[in-house]
Amino acid sequence: MEAEFLAWLAERVPPHRRVPLGIGDDAALLATPDATTVVTVDMLTEGVDFRLAEVDPRRVGRKALAVNLSDLAAMAARPTAVVIAAALPRHGALELAKALYEGMLPLCDEFDVALAGGDTNTWDGGLVISVTAFGSLTPRGPLRRDGAKPGDVILVTGALGGSILGHHFDFQPRIAEALALHERYTLHAGMDISDGLALDLSRLAKASGCGACLDLQAIPSAPAAHQLAAEQPGKTALDHALGDGEDFELLLAVPADEAARIVREQSLTVPITAIGRFVEQPGLWQSTPDGKPVPLATTGWQH
Amino acid sequence: MEAEFLAWLAERVPPHRRVPLGIGDDAALLATPDATTVVTVDMLTEGVDFRLAEVDPRRVGRKALAVNLSDLAAMAARPTAVVIAAALPRHGALELAKALYEGMLPLCDEFDVALAGGDTNTWDGGLVISVTAFGSLTPRGPLRRDGAKPGDVILVTGALGGSILGHHFDFQPRIAEALALHERYTLHAGMDISDGLALDLSRLAKASGCGACLDLQAIPSAPAAHQLAAEQPGKTALDHALGDGEDFELLLAVPADEAARIVREQSLTVPITAIGRFVEQPGLWQSTPDGKPVPLATTGWQH
Repeated sequence: MEAEFLAWLAERVPPHRRVPLGIGDDAALLATPDATTVVTVDMLTEGVDFRLAEVDPRRVGRKALAVNLSDLAAMAARPTAVVIAAALPRHGALELAKALYEGMLPLCDEFDVALAGGDTNTWDGGLVISVTAFGSLTPRGPLRRDGAKPGDVILVTGALGGSILGHHFDFQPRIAEALALHERYTLHAGMDISDGLALDLSRLAKASGCGACLDLQAIPSAPAAHQLAAEQPGKTALDHALGDGEDFELLLAVPADEAARIVREQSLTVPITAIGRFVEQPGLWQSTPDGKPVPLATTGWQH
Repeated sequence: MEAEFLAWLAERVPPHRRVPLGIGDDAALLATPDATTVVTVDMLTEGVDFRLAEVDPRRVGRKALAVNLSDLAAMAARPTAVVIAAALPRHGALELAKALYEGMLPLCDEFDVALAGGDTNTWDGGLVISVTAFGSLTPRGPLRRDGAKPGDVILVTGALGGSILGHHFDFQPRIAEALALHERYTLHAGMDISDGLALDLSRLAKASGCGACLDLQAIPSAPAAHQLAAEQPGKTALDHALGDGEDFELLLAVPADEAARIVREQSLTVPITAIGRFVEQPGLWQSTPDGKPVPLATTGWQH
């Protein structure tokens, strides 16, 4: 199956200037002219990240790549190349492998990502797909998690919650947005929201040695969050915006004057919203009308 | 489970000069001072590459890393860093993750490989572990598969066959051997033997646009190949040496005078043996006493 798949793939992956030696040898050669390369790996598993019975495998392939591009966006890195490993159920392995790649290749094109290599296996288990992605930094360097300072404003792109209704497959990795913001403004810290706003914000604050206080009224909840709230009583749209995973939006710590400028200028194709402040006191908080923050539960996707 | 595992791991992975930013952010930063980085990925799956019921998981972890180091050796690259993704069965996931890394860390130390990042998941399936490894080239460049020329001698390190009895877990990646040979001698092509001598040699010959003719009497068969032949009638030790997978020895194409020098000098800690020649006529052949090669079946591990 692997030989046949590689023959199919070779026709669809044109030579790329960043891969002087690609598919067909023991390893690939990747052009890395920078002194530092950004590297991330994310693995998706059947039953946890997707159900093959319910979704077109091309969307699974796209997601496997997109979650990695989102991690590169979170570092303000430009994607350069990927390598892909997959464990495929034996029955229909070849067709499944093709469909996964059919989902990935358009995203590779869109972001000029070289497909540098891979490893395709069949086994008696479910589908597992692991993507390792490479990126290069801009002259402004990486956008880390640990740079938030008390007083910084919390900014978020897009709208949050309800990703399970489809966004978790079809989201747009915020590469262009991260690069544009990092170039034009001073950002102190950033990450992508993959495990839910509350949990990921608390991680960013912890990594930075401070706390975070959310203005709950300001949090933009997605239409899908409202739809879920309407269909399933017990959770509000805000609950979904705080706790649902896989938004893959950018979460940023930005000095107050710079944040005001970003929000005013709205220079992205997606809205960007101020939703609170970083504070001295560790932990996650919500602001109140009387100005005294109260603790906020850290909901979210715990692995 | 992931948070607890990362805390355990952080204690065991000291900062490495090649990883300015490691575990804990959205991606890792990897020092890549060379213009070219060698990249390879290999995924192991339960039931195909190992059976957890029969083997210490530390040996599985070691193997997952070692097979990638063997691919780097096959390119004559020096290992620099790895990232690791694993899908773990839910029951006992934390203990299993620790054991896998306990198997990998000594090999990281031995080859000065930086553990740059990873992704650890739990699911309802079996164990899958995917390692992406990075390497740097020496001034002599990569050792590719496609450079063999008719008249070149076929060289092989070590002894072949019977790997299933244990060697496939405990083999030594031929990094030092590949680097030493590549530096001291002129090599035309090389790869590691992972799917069996006959199949991998036919691949190397095909990539080089020529054929290969084996001198069957010269092929060094491992003690394990003899043991298997004695225990299971029907296959000889030579059959095992030709067809068994996972030897992870080096297979080289070397100009005749240079090959004679390599075999005479035996400058490695492992024997190196001439086992045939590359020939004009495509395909796999065996030499005969009358000097007229006859076709040889391409046995081996077909994925």
